[in-house]
Amino acid sequence: MKYFEDLYVGERFISEAYEMSEERIIAFAEHYDPQVFHLDHEQAKETFFEGLAASGWHTGSVTMRLMAQTLPIATGVIGGGVDLRWLSPTRPGDILHIEVEVIEVTESRSKPDRGTVQIHVETKNQHGETRQTIDTRLLVFKRPQ
Amino acid sequence: MKYFEDLYVGERFISEAYEMSEERIIAFAEHYDPQVFHLDHEQAKETFFEGLAASGWHTGSVTMRLMAQTLPIATGVIGGGVDLRWLSPTRPGDILHIEVEVIEVTESRSKPDRGTVQIHVETKNQHGETRQTIDTRLLVFKRPQ
Repeated sequence: MKYFEDLYVGERFISEAYEMSEERIIAFAEHYDPQVFHLDHEQAKETFFEGLAASGWHTGSVTMRLMAQTLPIATGVIGGGVDLRWLSPTRPGDILHIEVEVIEVTESRSKPDRGTVQIHVETKNQHGETRQTIDTRLLVFKRPQ
Repeated sequence: MKYFEDLYVGERFISEAYEMSEERIIAFAEHYDPQVFHLDHEQAKETFFEGLAASGWHTGSVTMRLMAQTLPIATGVIGGGVDLRWLSPTRPGDILHIEVEVIEVTESRSKPDRGTVQIHVETKNQHGETRQTIDTRLLVFKRPQ
């Protein structure tokens, strides 16, 4: 597992895959985003999405799962926010993975035990189509002395 | 239900409440954010969060649920991304609601049937503590002619 001083600009991490089945898309939407284009294959055809699409929050939450599995940060994946863009709708049958790149590594000026690590995260399907991007700064602690 | 021409700058919407129980926090985290500070009451005390905290993605997904329930937009709540900030951790027992304000209303320059509506969304608990803010632009269609 890595601490702040182990991470470097340009470092990349690639996750395993996660399948976005129609069942999973609908189950997530029923609780967290109950709108017709996320719930009903047939009725979704008449909407802006022209077919069933996953809630963007489902894509985001699966991205978090893949980050937690993939980023080997000893003190956990902790962030204070994200800039999140949905570039295209996640569709049933998409098999998602994430590609993470370290953009910037910054020591805290006030707290000597930590720093922030800016990352760019692309969530892509099995055809290389980018469904979502996240830009965020993670709080990462240094190795305990 | 409202169309683009019905929404105005300064318009506000307030949702019903949603309880973030420990059971819901852990169930979400088990699938989408399996990290110790979101999963285990006791072990979470030794982490940065100093106790069990909901995944930020859980707070975000519940916010989406409340937006879908609360925003009376005829063609649905559709956005291309969000700027999301977690100001404080959502805790077990938090009863969340959202307060939404319309910031800007912009007609599309290229597509006469639609526009974008910029909103600011605050997710607060029963004590008025702000757990999360979202700034986003929604795609909103005009009333069919």
